[in-house]
Amino acid sequence: MNQPGNFIIHATDGNARRATLTTAHGEIQTPIFMPVGTQGTVKSLTPLDLEEMDAQIILGNTYHLYLRPGDDLVARRGGLHEFSNWKRPILTDSGGFQVFSLQEIRKLSEEGVEFRSYIDGSKHFFSPEKAIDIQKNLGSDIMMVLDECVGYGEDKKYTNKSLEMTTRWAQRCRDHYPKGSGDQLMFGIVQGGFFKDLREKSLAQLREIDFEGFAIGGLSVGESTEEMYDILHHIAPMMPETKPRYLMGVGTPLDLLEGVSAGVDMFDCVLPSRNARNGTLFTSMGKINIKRAQFAEDDSPLDPNCNCYTCRNFTKAYLRHLYQAKELLSYRLNTYHNLYFYLDLMKQVRASIEEGTFATLKAHYEEIYA
Amino acid sequence: MNQPGNFIIHATDGNARRATLTTAHGEIQTPIFMPVGTQGTVKSLTPLDLEEMDAQIILGNTYHLYLRPGDDLVARRGGLHEFSNWKRPILTDSGGFQVFSLQEIRKLSEEGVEFRSYIDGSKHFFSPEKAIDIQKNLGSDIMMVLDECVGYGEDKKYTNKSLEMTTRWAQRCRDHYPKGSGDQLMFGIVQGGFFKDLREKSLAQLREIDFEGFAIGGLSVGESTEEMYDILHHIAPMMPETKPRYLMGVGTPLDLLEGVSAGVDMFDCVLPSRNARNGTLFTSMGKINIKRAQFAEDDSPLDPNCNCYTCRNFTKAYLRHLYQAKELLSYRLNTYHNLYFYLDLMKQVRASIEEGTFATLKAHYEEIYA
Repeated sequence: MNQPGNFIIHATDGNARRATLTTAHGEIQTPIFMPVGTQGTVKSLTPLDLEEMDAQIILGNTYHLYLRPGDDLVARRGGLHEFSNWKRPILTDSGGFQVFSLQEIRKLSEEGVEFRSYIDGSKHFFSPEKAIDIQKNLGSDIMMVLDECVGYGEDKKYTNKSLEMTTRWAQRCRDHYPKGSGDQLMFGIVQGGFFKDLREKSLAQLREIDFEGFAIGGLSVGESTEEMYDILHHIAPMMPETKPRYLMGVGTPLDLLEGVSAGVDMFDCVLPSRNARNGTLFTSMGKINIKRAQFAEDDSPLDPNCNCYTCRNFTKAYLRHLYQAKELLSYRLNTYHNLYFYLDLMKQVRASIEEGTFATLKAHYEEIYA
Repeated sequence: MNQPGNFIIHATDGNARRATLTTAHGEIQTPIFMPVGTQGTVKSLTPLDLEEMDAQIILGNTYHLYLRPGDDLVARRGGLHEFSNWKRPILTDSGGFQVFSLQEIRKLSEEGVEFRSYIDGSKHFFSPEKAIDIQKNLGSDIMMVLDECVGYGEDKKYTNKSLEMTTRWAQRCRDHYPKGSGDQLMFGIVQGGFFKDLREKSLAQLREIDFEGFAIGGLSVGESTEEMYDILHHIAPMMPETKPRYLMGVGTPLDLLEGVSAGVDMFDCVLPSRNARNGTLFTSMGKINIKRAQFAEDDSPLDPNCNCYTCRNFTKAYLRHLYQAKELLSYRLNTYHNLYFYLDLMKQVRASIEEGTFATLKAHYEEIYA
């Protein structure tokens, strides 16, 4: 019974769900946040650090790994797990988001999308089948279909045309890797921009294809928080109850809590790690910018309620010094803390759903992060 | 008996010595290499990493810490140990080397040296007394006297004048912190450039002052290896037998072995950590540049004979990828390995002196690193 793709819901609290998803590299307890390891490494951290902070699953970026070191090379190393010495589950995106957001020069057709390498400007082409082939080479536990990620402000006509192609691409991905042809799972991605009826249409079409999970794409692309939450609360509860739901590329601690309240199970975002490198740190008492002069002589830990290596061993004064001096250890200690904070937040979320107190937890953080 | 400054020689092998030096933060087993933690951190590593690799003592740079975050600020935190959470011994240099090597604009007088901050161009002044005051604020276990570090190629007349001032400065340092006035040790620095008689003169003058140890300064400043070794073998064996001898800012694995063979007990150098960040890695089979294409698909560890975290967990292919991608983890894993290698080399050196096989060990590495 404990096959990859197995998804067991243990408890619910409103729309929030507490579940276990089985993958080829083990189970993950949801709701869960996935640290982003773009180039086969979560920036500045080792696999041991990530295990210490109880990261259950990390994300790898297909676009980046395809370009460097190359998915063929990774495949010859035995896949991304073996290559990077990360033994727990990995989710890979399809590269779609990067192609559509990072690239100026791209040509889009029914067949796929042409783009230029951000490394050397060379031309490349992703078809839905190619995106799956790359993810097969990477050997991730969860693959994502190739989708067109529509920017904020696109009109309804374009958004509709786009989501319909995304559906056809999703079907081609599934056809290229039929269910049961291996132990990698495949998730579809609901698009439709900021039009509720288009979101519904996208979801309805994707439900016809047999995916092991469903993601919400195309959010956090420039819209207001209100607009994002509006779409989120509309579409997430409509997504198949018996399958994991993944909100892609989102977000702040409050965004995660909002997502959970809408019934989302999985999240990823560069925000905690990128913010860490910029000195913005999340604590149980709110956000701190460690570069501020007020911390120059502050001998208290970053977060007295945090049990991470950074908080157990260093003061704000030292962390500020490292940041000011642009020391490599600054990036590392800050990243460690922020990811620990996010993972711990999700641990609290899971416990609160089991106890039926999720709303209280959410209200608590809403007050702190108001 | 086990007072700071205590120096017990357990064994000798030729001029090489195996000894224990007691400091306020514990004993160090010599010969020893001291990783450099310029700005209150050994770049990319935590105190825990350094303890894991059995670093016994690290070096802090007075010049850098004075400018940022400021030695007063560090003193208010309880000193550099408390500030950086490093519980083992620390040696601080006097700032002299940085002032004389990094600064274009400086004014030198009998009183001291004026220089500009590399951070904001502001003017500062180091006198011998000031250099000691800063090191008192930092609370290092071993302080160094302020010296003028003469560049390579200076003539004998200037070098002589300079070493005589360095002696007067050394006396002022000792007078400012008389022996026994605290538990910080103070080392004098032998100068004299590449003139053997001047080196002897410098040493003779410094011996008149009661230091807990003696260093050789002004080497590795642009001379050939032959010139460096010539001075080293001339002066090191003449230095007080009953006190620790420290060769400053040197060097390669072979330089360390040469120093030990001349009777040196302590070494520091940025070379292993700086080289690591540039992808040059030391192994039991010689030097490797990890950026080379030949390692792109090399699934073997960096050094199969190394037991460090990097070598136990990652392949050359992965390390090369991290380097190519300029990932923060590259700096960290490479630095960890190179420092581990240096510390392990000195561990082998200590064992070989105890066993009377130092010459064999030295010959072994001379073959590998030829």
